Amino acid sequence: MTLSASEVSRLKQAPPVDGVLPVVLNRWSPRSFSSREVSPADLAKVFEAARWAPSSNNEQPWRFVVGVRNSSTHSKIASALAGFNQAWAPLAPVLILGATKSTFTHKGAPNAYALYDLGASTALLVLQAAALGLAAHQMAGFDHAAARQALEIPEDFALGSVIALGYLGEPAALANERLLAQEVAPRERKPLKDFVFSAWVSPAEPS
Amino acid sequence: MTLSASEVSRLKQAPPVDGVLPVVLNRWSPRSFSSREVSPADLAKVFEAARWAPSSNNEQPWRFVVGVRNSSTHSKIASALAGFNQAWAPLAPVLILGATKSTFTHKGAPNAYALYDLGASTALLVLQAAALGLAAHQMAGFDHAAARQALEIPEDFALGSVIALGYLGEPAALANERLLAQEVAPRERKPLKDFVFSAWVSPAEPS
Repeated sequence: MTLSASEVSRLKQAPPVDGVLPVVLNRWSPRSFSSREVSPADLAKVFEAARWAPSSNNEQPWRFVVGVRNSSTHSKIASALAGFNQAWAPLAPVLILGATKSTFTHKGAPNAYALYDLGASTALLVLQAAALGLAAHQMAGFDHAAARQALEIPEDFALGSVIALGYLGEPAALANERLLAQEVAPRERKPLKDFVFSAWVSPAEPS
Repeated sequence: MTLSASEVSRLKQAPPVDGVLPVVLNRWSPRSFSSREVSPADLAKVFEAARWAPSSNNEQPWRFVVGVRNSSTHSKIASALAGFNQAWAPLAPVLILGATKSTFTHKGAPNAYALYDLGASTALLVLQAAALGLAAHQMAGFDHAAARQALEIPEDFALGSVIALGYLGEPAALANERLLAQEVAPRERKPLKDFVFSAWVSPAEPS
């Protein structure tokens, strides 16, 4: 028996921790999207959150190319996806490609934090999506060269992830059993002691 | 006349936007920290938020080395800071160095998203800090080689930022006029149309 969308959403919630932002614990990355469109006002809000991320030298190197369903940009982003993402992501009403400026505007020097800062900005984007009742899923699995060519991204911008954005759909609508199994699997993370150290690879103090 | 800490906090708030997470709009990166310590329980909460970031292949490549005041780790991180950060950051009760595994654990292949994912995880860390009434400030300005050597970070980990964490202090406590001017300057970001495009470098749809 397949779980419903709302049952899966409950299953994906991380255990609550007093004082920890619920939206951080409850955000997850689905593959089944409903056909419901995202309003321009909500789209503006997810980018407003991305906008206020911190960045090295306040460079704000992030750029987002946004394709809404039935636009050529949506088609171009969808076409660049790897096969295993083609099986679900093109059904999302919004596909976004993140890119980041590899040099500082001010002095032209390489910006070693360009991808780091894009990751931060995109993290706020997907968190804000969750806060609005939207769902978002970032993908590394796409043909970077094809996406760069189709969307005419200049060489001095590095590519980040493709983000599928929309409203959560029913798991049963997914195209195959493998996608369904991923959709209803619990979220897993390492315990704090495996990534927080008071000295390298020694047990963590705060855990 | 110097502004007080609470006056600066108000000044740093981004204009509210209905439906946008207030903590995203109100988080900022101070340089003046009070001497008040961060409790181990609150430290655990900021890492709990970092823990639930999404990552490529769910690799969770991020690692955090945490130095609390008067520890050798705090001293080692402080020693690696660039001069302009040495002028304020060592007074923060907690200094954290972020690092990220450059290869996938599963197959040993290079992880092109290692820094991107560390940026995402750290973005949630500093957001959670703001939600707890803490202040955090990420720095790129430190001697990476010196930090790597002092903290014995293996070569297959790339370094991210040093994060100063604590409670906001009075601007007047800063060591010089330049730091004070930065502390009380309004936060600035590009408008949406400068980084959100429906096609590369054309005006944004959602703005």
